Amino acid sequence: MHPLDAWRVGAEPFYQEVGAEVALFEAAYARRLPLLLKGPTGCGKTRFVEYMAWRLGRPLVTVACNDDLSANDLVGRWLLDADGTRWQDGPLTLAARYGAICYLDEIVEARADTAVVIHPLTDTRRMLPVGARNEIVRAHPDFALAVSYNPGADAREMKTSTRQRFCALAFDYPAREAEAAIVARESGIAPERAAQIVGLGIRTRRLQGQGLDEGASTRMLVQAATLVAQGVALGDACRMALLDPLTDDPATRQALEGALDAAL
Amino acid sequence: MHPLDAWRVGAEPFYQEVGAEVALFEAAYARRLPLLLKGPTGCGKTRFVEYMAWRLGRPLVTVACNDDLSANDLVGRWLLDADGTRWQDGPLTLAARYGAICYLDEIVEARADTAVVIHPLTDTRRMLPVGARNEIVRAHPDFALAVSYNPGADAREMKTSTRQRFCALAFDYPAREAEAAIVARESGIAPERAAQIVGLGIRTRRLQGQGLDEGASTRMLVQAATLVAQGVALGDACRMALLDPLTDDPATRQALEGALDAAL
Amino acid sequence: MHPLDAWRVGAEPFYQEVGAEVALFEAAYARRLPLLLKGPTGCGKTRFVEYMAWRLGRPLVTVACNDDLSANDLVGRWLLDADGTRWQDGPLTLAARYGAICYLDEIVEARADTAVVIHPLTDTRRMLPVGARNEIVRAHPDFALAVSYNPGADAREMKTSTRQRFCALAFDYPAREAEAAIVARESGIAPERAAQIVGLGIRTRRLQGQGLDEGASTRMLVQAATLVAQGVALGDACRMALLDPLTDDPATRQALEGALDAAL
Amino acid sequence: MHPLDAWRVGAEPFYQEVGAEVALFEAAYARRLPLLLKGPTGCGKTRFVEYMAWRLGRPLVTVACNDDLSANDLVGRWLLDADGTRWQDGPLTLAARYGAICYLDEIVEARADTAVVIHPLTDTRRMLPVGARNEIVRAHPDFALAVSYNPGADAREMKTSTRQRFCALAFDYPAREAEAAIVARESGIAPERAAQIVGLGIRTRRLQGQGLDEGASTRMLVQAATLVAQGVALGDACRMALLDPLTDDPATRQALEGALDAAL
Amino acid sequence: MHPLDAWRVGAEPFYQEVGAEVALFEAAYARRLPLLLKGPTGCGKTRFVEYMAWRLGRPLVTVACNDDLSANDLVGRWLLDADGTRWQDGPLTLAARYGAICYLDEIVEARADTAVVIHPLTDTRRMLPVGARNEIVRAHPDFALAVSYNPGADAREMKTSTRQRFCALAFDYPAREAEAAIVARESGIAPERAAQIVGLGIRTRRLQGQGLDEGASTRMLVQAATLVAQGVALGDACRMALLDPLTDDPATRQALEGALDAAL
Amino acid sequence: MHPLDAWRVGAEPFYQEVGAEVALFEAAYARRLPLLLKGPTGCGKTRFVEYMAWRLGRPLVTVACNDDLSANDLVGRWLLDADGTRWQDGPLTLAARYGAICYLDEIVEARADTAVVIHPLTDTRRMLPVGARNEIVRAHPDFALAVSYNPGADAREMKTSTRQRFCALAFDYPAREAEAAIVARESGIAPERAAQIVGLGIRTRRLQGQGLDEGASTRMLVQAATLVAQGVALGDACRMALLDPLTDDPATRQALEGALDAAL
Repeated sequence: MHPLDAWRVGAEPFYQEVGAEVALFEAAYARRLPLLLKGPTGCGKTRFVEYMAWRLGRPLVTVACNDDLSANDLVGRWLLDADGTRWQDGPLTLAARYGAICYLDEIVEARADTAVVIHPLTDTRRMLPVGARNEIVRAHPDFALAVSYNPGADAREMKTSTRQRFCALAFDYPAREAEAAIVARESGIAPERAAQIVGLGIRTRRLQGQGLDEGASTRMLVQAATLVAQGVALGDACRMALLDPLTDDPATRQALEGALDAAL
Repeated sequence: MHPLDAWRVGAEPFYQEVGAEVALFEAAYARRLPLLLKGPTGCGKTRFVEYMAWRLGRPLVTVACNDDLSANDLVGRWLLDADGTRWQDGPLTLAARYGAICYLDEIVEARADTAVVIHPLTDTRRMLPVGARNEIVRAHPDFALAVSYNPGADAREMKTSTRQRFCALAFDYPAREAEAAIVARESGIAPERAAQIVGLGIRTRRLQGQGLDEGASTRMLVQAATLVAQGVALGDACRMALLDPLTDDPATRQALEGALDAAL
Repeated sequence: MHPLDAWRVGAEPFYQEVGAEVALFEAAYARRLPLLLKGPTGCGKTRFVEYMAWRLGRPLVTVACNDDLSANDLVGRWLLDADGTRWQDGPLTLAARYGAICYLDEIVEARADTAVVIHPLTDTRRMLPVGARNEIVRAHPDFALAVSYNPGADAREMKTSTRQRFCALAFDYPAREAEAAIVARESGIAPERAAQIVGLGIRTRRLQGQGLDEGASTRMLVQAATLVAQGVALGDACRMALLDPLTDDPATRQALEGALDAAL
Repeated sequence: MHPLDAWRVGAEPFYQEVGAEVALFEAAYARRLPLLLKGPTGCGKTRFVEYMAWRLGRPLVTVACNDDLSANDLVGRWLLDADGTRWQDGPLTLAARYGAICYLDEIVEARADTAVVIHPLTDTRRMLPVGARNEIVRAHPDFALAVSYNPGADAREMKTSTRQRFCALAFDYPAREAEAAIVARESGIAPERAAQIVGLGIRTRRLQGQGLDEGASTRMLVQAATLVAQGVALGDACRMALLDPLTDDPATRQALEGALDAAL
Repeated sequence: MHPLDAWRVGAEPFYQEVGAEVALFEAAYARRLPLLLKGPTGCGKTRFVEYMAWRLGRPLVTVACNDDLSANDLVGRWLLDADGTRWQDGPLTLAARYGAICYLDEIVEARADTAVVIHPLTDTRRMLPVGARNEIVRAHPDFALAVSYNPGADAREMKTSTRQRFCALAFDYPAREAEAAIVARESGIAPERAAQIVGLGIRTRRLQGQGLDEGASTRMLVQAATLVAQGVALGDACRMALLDPLTDDPATRQALEGALDAAL
Repeated sequence: MHPLDAWRVGAEPFYQEVGAEVALFEAAYARRLPLLLKGPTGCGKTRFVEYMAWRLGRPLVTVACNDDLSANDLVGRWLLDADGTRWQDGPLTLAARYGAICYLDEIVEARADTAVVIHPLTDTRRMLPVGARNEIVRAHPDFALAVSYNPGADAREMKTSTRQRFCALAFDYPAREAEAAIVARESGIAPERAAQIVGLGIRTRRLQGQGLDEGASTRMLVQAATLVAQGVALGDACRMALLDPLTDDPATRQALEGALDAAL
């Protein structure tokens, strides 16, 4: 079995293009420029990367970054075996060695060394020093790196010396009609009900900074619509999928109920 | 033995429905939407999940989250064996691989990486990358995720990028009569004495924010009633099960004694 | 050998009942309600638990909690053996599996995960998930949990979600005559000298909050009396066992000398 | 295979000399004086070191420093093998033992012990105590040490006792014409378009301290030019490679758009 | 070989009694009461414990506490052996199991768990639960515990719940003549020169709180005298052994020079 | 091979005595008094210790202390071997066991436990308890301890209880003529040019506290002279070896340029 078989994207993921992002991703990939996807929670960054990996026919190695993710988690480590120690590539090494697209989701959440470990892979050297075994992995010609980042929600900022290594694509929620089409298509409900849910979602986004860190994501709207498709009443579905997850604060909850009344 | 046998809920747990939560949980489970249960300490969230697992005939893998719980504790680790290392699934992997409901109790208490590790399981990918062995676990069709959270007591907040992945059900203490029925049923004492204890419990909840972080939970009322059933005098039982656990502050203790006098 | 043999309480510990605590402990144990013992340093909480374990004929597994005590220290861990890894139950698992009373002394001193790991053992589930080996330990019918806590001296507070799981018994120093009897009995000195030492102890307790965090405990009075029984002059014994341990501050030491003059 | 074979610089790296840095590096290397390269992100420090290693015919062992890099990562560690433990040199030991140039990129990002471990290698002793195996490695005659540091962007400062061990070369962005030549050569676009992109880059650098931590690096200009070479429109390429990576702040983004209008 | 052989005190240590501390230590040891030695740096606490261990004919297990000393360092740990793991007693367990005096020097410097681990050894239980192997070590009849503490210099305080378990002996510098005798005896210089050095030492102690944390200890005076005995001029010896070690602050150094002029 | 062979000082190190430090070191070593060397960066403390070790014919075990250096790094640890675990002495144990001078460079940079672990080696006990194997190492008669400390640059202070165990020698930069002689001798340049460089060095030291933490060390002056000897122009050499390493601050750099103009 090829080491990247498990990481292939099986079926074509549904992705609704918003602007020219498909062509720009392809241009960056053609020159193997590292790519930074910026945008709010649940607006489709991860889906877009999956779609591009499928479109380009490359395996996709995704890593959800977090505060405990160290460079070793990305690069690899020695495992103890019956015959002594055995080396196991981490996901970044795997992608670099065999030629996948490596996607580091929410990269600023990772520990400081994670950002630094990707540096030699993101310039003309295209190499990954694997200190623990004194090996230098030269990146496979197909290898490319993509990372995501949510400027509004992430408390930390990317280091300048890391940022400056990337080309960037900025994402936002789709326009009203496009979003309604996505919600209807993914949940299977009627377009007019999808439009109602999207209307509520847009109202919640106006509360950003006034009680909410972020408004409802497209993903949340799809979940509300999915509950409706399952037979839950529209108001109950919106409360369960949008209002209750968005806030614990009574006053903000009140404002969201107002938005619900106005939208449905 | 099936790997999930130990996690089956044996007998039907007693659960008194308060609103439409049973139907809403079933709707969410039908579409495998991840679910967030919000509410105060001891109001029955954990019991509800047990009941639903029993009702749906699914094993329930419960993890009590805490500050030292890392992603590896959830996902699994390599153990050293006579023949080298042997992989052991963590509870989340176990649930995802074989199809249980995984319940992460008090999820915000866990370390940051715990929240992130569940992300790929909570969207359409429904997969769990097991970095330590370069495996991608595709979730079993029966797998679903539920988490709990106490907005009043938990110092930390859920990350927006995690919250927005969940549908939510808000819980509160049952209404007076319903709570008295629960207390009587679980302890075996007479309804009128149960009502007295519930009356005291409701008075303690009015002290929330005035010396108490939270008032007495339903669970505490049941414990007071249980002491009464065991032969302890009503006042002694309430002091032991309600007043002394609730506070160490003399003034607040005084106020609670006043509530005791008024209620019994 | 039975795994709990080492934890049996050999001879009857001397314990002088102060109120109804023996009956209340028995009532709580009869229903296996978890118990919280609150009170100042050295007032007899640990001795009381030992006495109750002896009286109830149950082994007692005591854990002195501290800042480095993790959940794994309580639950157990894998040890490396000639034939690979071997599991070793921690004290909590040992008590739950075979039916001892488990006593967590100064529980708030433990790390956050310690408090959480006991949650599933303290409600109707009475189970302990042992994550490291994917085992669920169902508590032995004889198992019960007791914890202690010193509201005056412990800087940290118990989490509400933990506190609300316990019935509580509040302890204080014994009344003057009872305390003198205890001091005389435990040290073997004459009652009138014991009374003098107790008088000094009571005076030191009045300095609490005025230079002292806590006054002299009953245990300290017993140690002063023991030195007297060993032939040390009364004043020297009180300085060595009470005054010098209680404070390093010259002014407070001066006040304690005044109390010594007044009491002896 | 020679242990340093993997670290040889294969082809001559393109490097455009700005001042007398090549001769000064050669003078320092001739006497094996340790060298500190100071300057902003992406101005060519790493490329310069690669070029010098190639020119001097020495292998180059590069370490990207980070917050989790400990002295042991540099010096080496014991690995468990079928026959017990086996020592593995870290990159610093490897370079010192066999005679490479060791380049510690962004040295202040490393943990405190990293800076100290290089001290005995940077004075007349030229030795590296390898504590873990009680070995003293005497540096190979060809060994030399170079480190880099970005005074503008690095939050931490180098310890005086470390700094004073180094000779220093200060780097800055190339002059306008030189930079345009570099951009044209590396991307393959026409000189006049390269000049436009460099003009925009220079404008962004004037915003340093007024919304930007640093302006666009030469590397970023090359990436913009590369996208143009790949067929992306000039404005889109500059937005993707310069504007969007440089800032998330709307006002600063606005100012950058103004610079874009003025420059293209 | 007996496990405590290495810990026996070979020859009689020189100790000059200051008050009744020998008899009081003996009384406490006779009843195995735990003992706290309080006093400034270098006033002879450690020497006193060594002397008492020699006098009582007991081995002395000394542990210099520090910030990294954990409970496991005191209690013991599993070592990996050819036949699997092998248990090794820590110094506290060793002393408790076989009957030594265990002396924890500067106990407040240890991590929090160190203080707690000694609790069950310091009351009537006289036991040490060794959690890592589920063993309870009952203390040998000869076992006793002594700890030291410097109230003036230690930034941290002992926890009340630990302090109250100890009898205490307060130490201070010896009186002038006694100190001169000690200095003369330990260094071999003439009494009048020893008196001069002691005079300087007493002057430095008056600067405590006025530039010095503590004045010169008896140990420092002995070191100055030792240099004199080795042929160093009196002034040089005092500068090297007293003034330069005591301060780096020029003004305080100046004041010490004044004290030197006045004393010699 | 003798375990200390690797640590012998081969050839006589060049050391220019400034005061009576050679005789004072010899007196302290004759009585094995522990020695503290105080003084600024690069003034020759390390070289002095090397010279004294050579002069006294003793091996020198040097440890560059740092924030990650723990007591175990000094004392030793168990390594896993084909036949189980094997003990490896750390550098301090090695020096104590076989009789070297142990030199802890920049001791305050080490973790707190490092300071404490040397205590029993620095008084009349002259022993090192090796807790991990329950061994007490009695120091070899030739063993002595020296430590260094930079009062001006080290942010941390030595603990009083550690300081008071040492005799101290204060170091400073050599006088102008002596320093010029050292610079000329070590670099091979003409005395008058060495004098010019020393003149510049002295001017930089006047900027201490006015932009510089410390002025140029003697070592830096030697490096500037070495570049001159290699053919670099005097001004360029001073910029590269003195000005650029000393500061990143433009204003201070300007002041240093002024000093350069005045001195050359």
